[in-house]
Formats: sequence, C-alpha cells, structure tokens
Amino acid sequence: MKAASYVRIAVIIATCCLLAACGGRREGIADLDVLPQRAAAYLPDGAANPLLSPEVQKGLQSRFFDRFFAPWRAQKASLAPKVAFWGTETFGRKKGFAENLQPWSRPRWESLVSMQMEGSYPSMARHAIATRNTSFRVMPTDKPFFYNPSRAGEGYPFDYMQNSAVWIGTPLLVTHVSADGAWYFAEAGITFGWLPADAIGWTDEAFRRDYMTGTYAAALRDRIVLRTDGGAFAGMAHLGAVFPISVSAMMLETASAGAAQTPPATNLPVIIPLRTVEGNAIAATIHLPPTTVGLMPQAISAQALAHFADMMMGQPYGWGGLLENRDCSAAMRDLFAPFGIWLPRNSSQQGKEVGTPISLEGKTAAEKRAIILEQGIPFYTLLWFKGHIGLYIGPDAATGEPLLLHDVWGARTEWKGEEGRAVVGRLAVTTLRFAEERDDVKKDWFYDRLRGMVLMPSKL
Amino acid sequence: MKAASYVRIAVIIATCCLLAACGGRREGIADLDVLPQRAAAYLPDGAANPLLSPEVQKGLQSRFFDRFFAPWRAQKASLAPKVAFWGTETFGRKKGFAENLQPWSRPRWESLVSMQMEGSYPSMARHAIATRNTSFRVMPTDKPFFYNPSRAGEGYPFDYMQNSAVWIGTPLLVTHVSADGAWYFAEAGITFGWLPADAIGWTDEAFRRDYMTGTYAAALRDRIVLRTDGGAFAGMAHLGAVFPISVSAMMLETASAGAAQTPPATNLPVIIPLRTVEGNAIAATIHLPPTTVGLMPQAISAQALAHFADMMMGQPYGWGGLLENRDCSAAMRDLFAPFGIWLPRNSSQQGKEVGTPISLEGKTAAEKRAIILEQGIPFYTLLWFKGHIGLYIGPDAATGEPLLLHDVWGARTEWKGEEGRAVVGRLAVTTLRFAEERDDVKKDWFYDRLRGMVLMPSKL
Repeated sequence: MKAASYVRIAVIIATCCLLAACGGRREGIADLDVLPQRAAAYLPDGAANPLLSPEVQKGLQSRFFDRFFAPWRAQKASLAPKVAFWGTETFGRKKGFAENLQPWSRPRWESLVSMQMEGSYPSMARHAIATRNTSFRVMPTDKPFFYNPSRAGEGYPFDYMQNSAVWIGTPLLVTHVSADGAWYFAEAGITFGWLPADAIGWTDEAFRRDYMTGTYAAALRDRIVLRTDGGAFAGMAHLGAVFPISVSAMMLETASAGAAQTPPATNLPVIIPLRTVEGNAIAATIHLPPTTVGLMPQAISAQALAHFADMMMGQPYGWGGLLENRDCSAAMRDLFAPFGIWLPRNSSQQGKEVGTPISLEGKTAAEKRAIILEQGIPFYTLLWFKGHIGLYIGPDAATGEPLLLHDVWGARTEWKGEEGRAVVGRLAVTTLRFAEERDDVKKDWFYDRLRGMVLMPSKL
Repeated sequence: MKAASYVRIAVIIATCCLLAACGGRREGIADLDVLPQRAAAYLPDGAANPLLSPEVQKGLQSRFFDRFFAPWRAQKASLAPKVAFWGTETFGRKKGFAENLQPWSRPRWESLVSMQMEGSYPSMARHAIATRNTSFRVMPTDKPFFYNPSRAGEGYPFDYMQNSAVWIGTPLLVTHVSADGAWYFAEAGITFGWLPADAIGWTDEAFRRDYMTGTYAAALRDRIVLRTDGGAFAGMAHLGAVFPISVSAMMLETASAGAAQTPPATNLPVIIPLRTVEGNAIAATIHLPPTTVGLMPQAISAQALAHFADMMMGQPYGWGGLLENRDCSAAMRDLFAPFGIWLPRNSSQQGKEVGTPISLEGKTAAEKRAIILEQGIPFYTLLWFKGHIGLYIGPDAATGEPLLLHDVWGARTEWKGEEGRAVVGRLAVTTLRFAEERDDVKKDWFYDRLRGMVLMPSKL
C-alpha cells in the first residue's frame, strides 16, 4: 500500500467522523468529500489521444443525425395507442399524489384522461420543431403525479408525468392534440410524449430543407443565451443541444473555413428556430462565439469528455429532465452528443443499444470489480445498473476502486426498519461503494445492481 | 338544537370514526367530508341581490384599472435596491435547499446573486406586457429554494423563490435585466419580481394606446384556451385575467351593443398580447364565447361570487401561484377581479387596504365568533389571519359556526413532540375549527391566528 493510500484512508476516516452526528447515525457520503469532484482530476495517461478516427466519428455522426431527424422523414404515427398512452393505464392503477401532496382527485384524473382523446389518436402527422427547451410529459399536464410522498425516494422531485427534457431545436412529428388544444403529442428521435403547444413551431418543407444544412454545431456548455442578431431573447441552449450551421453564411463570413475539426475563431452562424405568433417555426441565423458552440463532431478523447463532464459537474439531479436538469441517462446522452455519438434516452436502452455490451449478470462484486478494472476503458465505458447508468473513468489512485461519473439520486438506506436515502442528487464522481461507510447502507448494494458494462464504439 | 343539527353531528362522528386509523392517530379533516364543497350550497337569502350599485362598481373598477395600468404610467423604477433585491439578504442568511433536496451550494448561490447585477439597478424603464402566464420570482431563477424539507410545512411545494403568478396581459414596467439577459426585473400593479425574458413583450406607445380601450372583459373561468383567429395557440387564461375589448370590432359586430352589464350572446372581440420573434408585443383581436369571458364589471352579488368561487373550488393550493395554482390571497384577488374590485397581492395588505377593517386583536375565540356572526356579511367579508385570508360565507346551518371559503394549506399538528400538518391543500369550505376534532390539533389554533375582518366596500 502506498503512502498516498494511507493518507486517503485517514482522510476518509476523518471525514466520516466529521459527518457522524453526535451520538446518532452517520450521515453524508464520504466519497463526495474525499474524491475531487472534477472529471479532469482523473485523466488517464494519453488522455488527449483520439478515441476514434475522424472517419469513424463521421460515420457515427451520420447515424446521430439519422436518429435526430427521423421524425421529419416519418409520414405517420409510429406508436400504437397503448404505447402512446401508457400513462393512462399505468398511473390509473396507482395512487397518485398531486402538487398539494394529496391524492389526485377522481374528477381531476378523469378530466386529464379525457383530455387525451385517445379514441381519435392519431389525428395528424405534422412536422414541427421545439422552439424552446421543454419537456415530454406522459400526459397533457404540467401538474405533477407523485407516488406516496411519505415513502423514501418518492414525492418531489419524482414527478412521474415528467418523461424527458426536450432541448430547443428538436425535430418532431406531431401526431395528436389534446381536447383543449393546449398540448400536442409528438415523437422525437429520443422518445415521445406531450408538449405544451407554445413550445413548438410548425415547419414547412422549405424550413426543413434550410434547417438540414449537413453541417452542425453542438452546445459546448450549459446556459448559452440565444438571442436574435437584433437582440431579442430567443431561448437558452444547454450541452446536448445541436443546431445547424448556416453554411452559406459561414462561407461568406470566414475566408478560411478550414476543416470541420478546427472551429474558426470568429463567431459561428448558427440557425435557431423561432416561433411566430402564427405558431410556425422560422429559421433565424444568429452568431455565437466559439466558446459556446463548436462544429460537430468535436474530436473525442478522454480529455474532451472530461472537459464536457466538468461543464455539468455538481449540477442538481433532474428526474426526467425536470427543471432542465439531467438524470443519469440524460447526462450520458448530453455528454456524448458533441462528439456526434447518439445515445438512446433511457438507461436500459443505453446499456443495450450502443457499443459492445459485456454482461456482468450473476457475478460477485469482486468479480465485477475485476472485470471493470481489466476491460473498462476510462472515460469510454458505460456501467449499467438496474435503473441507472454512468461513465467509468478509471480506478481510484488511492484505493484501486473503479470510479464512476454519474448523475445519481442516492443510495438506499435502512435504519431501525425505516427506509431512506443517502442523497447525492447531482452529477458526481464516486466509487461503486459510495455511502457504504454508513451503518444504514448495505454492503455491495450498488455492485449488486450492476448488470453490465458497455464499451463505447471503437470501430464501425 | 334542531333535528338537522343532530344528524350533522352524527355524520361528523361517523366520519371521524371512519377517518381514524385503526388503533392509531385520527387522520383527515372532518369539515371536508361533512360540509358540501360548493359555495353555491351556502347562498344566503337574497343572494341574487346586488351588493353594490352599478355606479359604485364603476367607481371601484376605475380604481382597479388605475392600479392595473400603473406600470405604464410610471417613468422610472419605484423600488429601492434593498426592496427589489430583498431575497439576496433574506435568503443569504438562511440555509436553502435546492431541487435535489440538498443545500444550495455556495458557488451556485453566489452565481445567482451576481446574476442580478444589483450594482447597476435600475438599468432601464421600459413598458412591457406579460405575453403568457408566468411567475414573479424573487431572484432570476426557475430553480426552487426550499427551507429544510424535513421540517413540517417546508420543502415542496414551498419554493420561496416563488412570489406570485402573473397572468397573461399584465402591464409591466421593466427596470432591470439579469447578467445573462434571460430574466427581466419588473413592477406590476400587484407586486414585482423577476420574469423569464420570453414571457414578456415590449410595448410601444401605439400598442399601449390601442390596448387601453376603456372597455374590459374578465375571464369567467380557468383554463380558457386563447388562440388567434388563425387558429394558433396563444396562451391560457384563468379567472383573474382581464383583457381589453376591441370597441371598434364590437361596434361593428354587435348591432345591439347594449349596456355593459348585458354581454352580447355572440363571441366577444378580445385583445390579447402576442410576443413576436423580435420580442415585441403585438395586439391580436380574438373572439371568445361569452361563456369564457364577460364584460367588466360583472354585477356583484353573493350568488355571482359563489358562482366564480365554484369555478376554482377544490383546485390544489399553489404557494405563490406555483403551477398557475392559487394561494389564499390569490384566490381572493381572482375571485373579486371580474367585479372590478382590486385586491392587493398578499393577505396582510388585503386585511388592511380594502374595505372597512374591524380588528379582532386581543379577543377570545368566542368573542371573535360572535363578532363575525353579528357583523360579517356572507360572501362579502374577508377574515384575515396571521399569514392567511379567506371569505366569510355565513354560519353553518347545522352548528352555527362561521364558514370560511379559503385556499389553505392546512392546520398545524403536534403528536409525540413532532410537528406536522393536517393538509387541506385546496380551495375549500371549512369552519374556523377545521381539524380540531383531531387529537393532534390544538383547540382554537385557527381562531387564535384570526386578526381581523374586512367588510368589503359598500359605498365609495
């Protein structure tokens, strides 16, 4: 054992003591105090080396935009009513709690169900685009549906009507409308659900042709304010959002356009969708500094991944994208988007549909640990748990434990027969044993939920 | 004691027994099961009689629109920095919890504070209008600031950044902008705070002149979908929202325009504000059926008040207007708006600034009860509590207890030294002794908080 390890363990013990309530149960999570909460602190040797060749990245990006623009190629609803309206049956059987933490009343629930007009679905097939950040809701309401708030890990922020954040510029196929016209049901590349009517704009063929320029830029950080060149506020872009580049504007503006991998030092002419008062989308070319948007794909390396991870690090967990925050799978999606790598929306799909899956089912914690350390590629391997996902970023230098970069709510606790949560609640770096120093967290609980790992694509 | 009273008491007892958890503490609130939850069930004799003459209503309405349009007459910020940015100091001293139920991190807090650019306030004075329903936030963020969620009556939905709902069509004086340009600080007739930049439209003199037509319509119920005559979704109007009538359109369209008190059977030409892609407000005349909007002032009577109260009855409580729901004072405001009667935003102002206040300080519960029953005018008297307000609607026929129509979170409970809440969480009819049948609710707790009553204006 190296000297550094002893120091680290001493720090862990000291932290645990500090965190222990006097005479009571230990609280807090030692990993969060001990492990630097910066992805860049864990860069492996050769972190700047490309993980993929430009050709392979180009191929992956082409698949990315196939998925992204798929709703605009579709001519009719792809979802059966049972799938589109899964909430009606699933939630109809549950006892749901409303924003006043009281049960949803029967009349209110029935009014919501009938608002969906399931009988007439699908009632349209119109191509549209998200003209601001919004959310796919399971049913046409912005009101929450909690399970029993007095149960551990339920109640706010776990609003089960919340399905997914939808970033501005997301292409949509709108297939249905609510009875009051205030909500549209739409399919996107990632998933589907109900969107507020004022968050989308209708597109015509000219708009779509002008929008699919073939050259795209990715948001390089969160909270990029979009304003028209005239100065009007036009929205906010977060990491994971992508926009077309106006190629004609760029050719005019940049004398030395250069290769896609070297962004020009001048502002980029990016196309954003605006919603007119008639409810249509129009394309506006705006100019954004290269510190905020960059040409896709960004060259992929552990260093670049760490850089983007650190743009999100520490931000609060957002169930289903609530409040434009991210949950575990959204964090992975948005992390890989600038590199032109498409990840599906939810953790189990991410565990199956990308890269090379390696099952860890039926293995002990020690075996799982060994396989991760042996086969995992730091910053380029997903670890997939029951209902959770994160990025393996290498072994902890001090303890040798595999480190995970993940947006996680917390660990299950049990104390005197009562269930609770040791809450992380943010994008963090932890081991797979986080919170296990506590008396109320079961050993191996997180390892036990580990189902598999996914080596991200290396060759096509 | 009448037979009806015995029956009522038997029902109360039966309900209490039903509500009592087996062998445990009693739960639920008997009033909610015993008292019909419809304001119309409590109409006094002569409920259809006008409470005010048309002349008096006209005078009150003139004051209503003085307040409503005040931001457009103002030429500069009326608030000192200390008042405008009260959140910085008040919340800076508190331990706040974020949407992940973990403490607000120091850097995140400091970034929020600096986003306000307090040093350069006020930086502008521009007349604008809310182009959709939105909320005044205490600081420029949509993220919540909870007090300790493990304390009774704290945590969701008590987001202390939430100040007030702002209905579409609210005139504004914008006096400042956040560092990132995504939020504007504005003053309205009701109160002030930060608004999302895409929820407002700039107005020019022509817009304001065309908007102040002198003839106004009130929303007659919640969830009125606004769409342009071209069919585009343009927003949602709730009770409490007011819009100008396009007088020229009405004169053209209605051959028999008639008196303001008799709405035409045809659709009303109402002006709504739309936000252009340049961020400006434009006025659109749309046509709404007389079942959704009516000319102001609506003739005021107990019956009419009960009618509008029943439009909101049972709806979830909304702290500071969260999710476009109402808290206690917002319910009173929106209830009286169609009659052209302006109520201030918060309960203590409502208890002091309108009508004729009658102090109940220092009186016993029995004395307070007697004064309410003697001097209170059913459906036309506000009862004002510490941090709460509601409408007195007369004595309960069965028990003689004064009945209150109010949007209330709940009653404080205490059991084995632990504080809790008996939650109503909605606009309801209760006595002032609601939940007192429970072992964990103190007798007279609500009466003790009663500070005064306000007889609503009868003469000018």
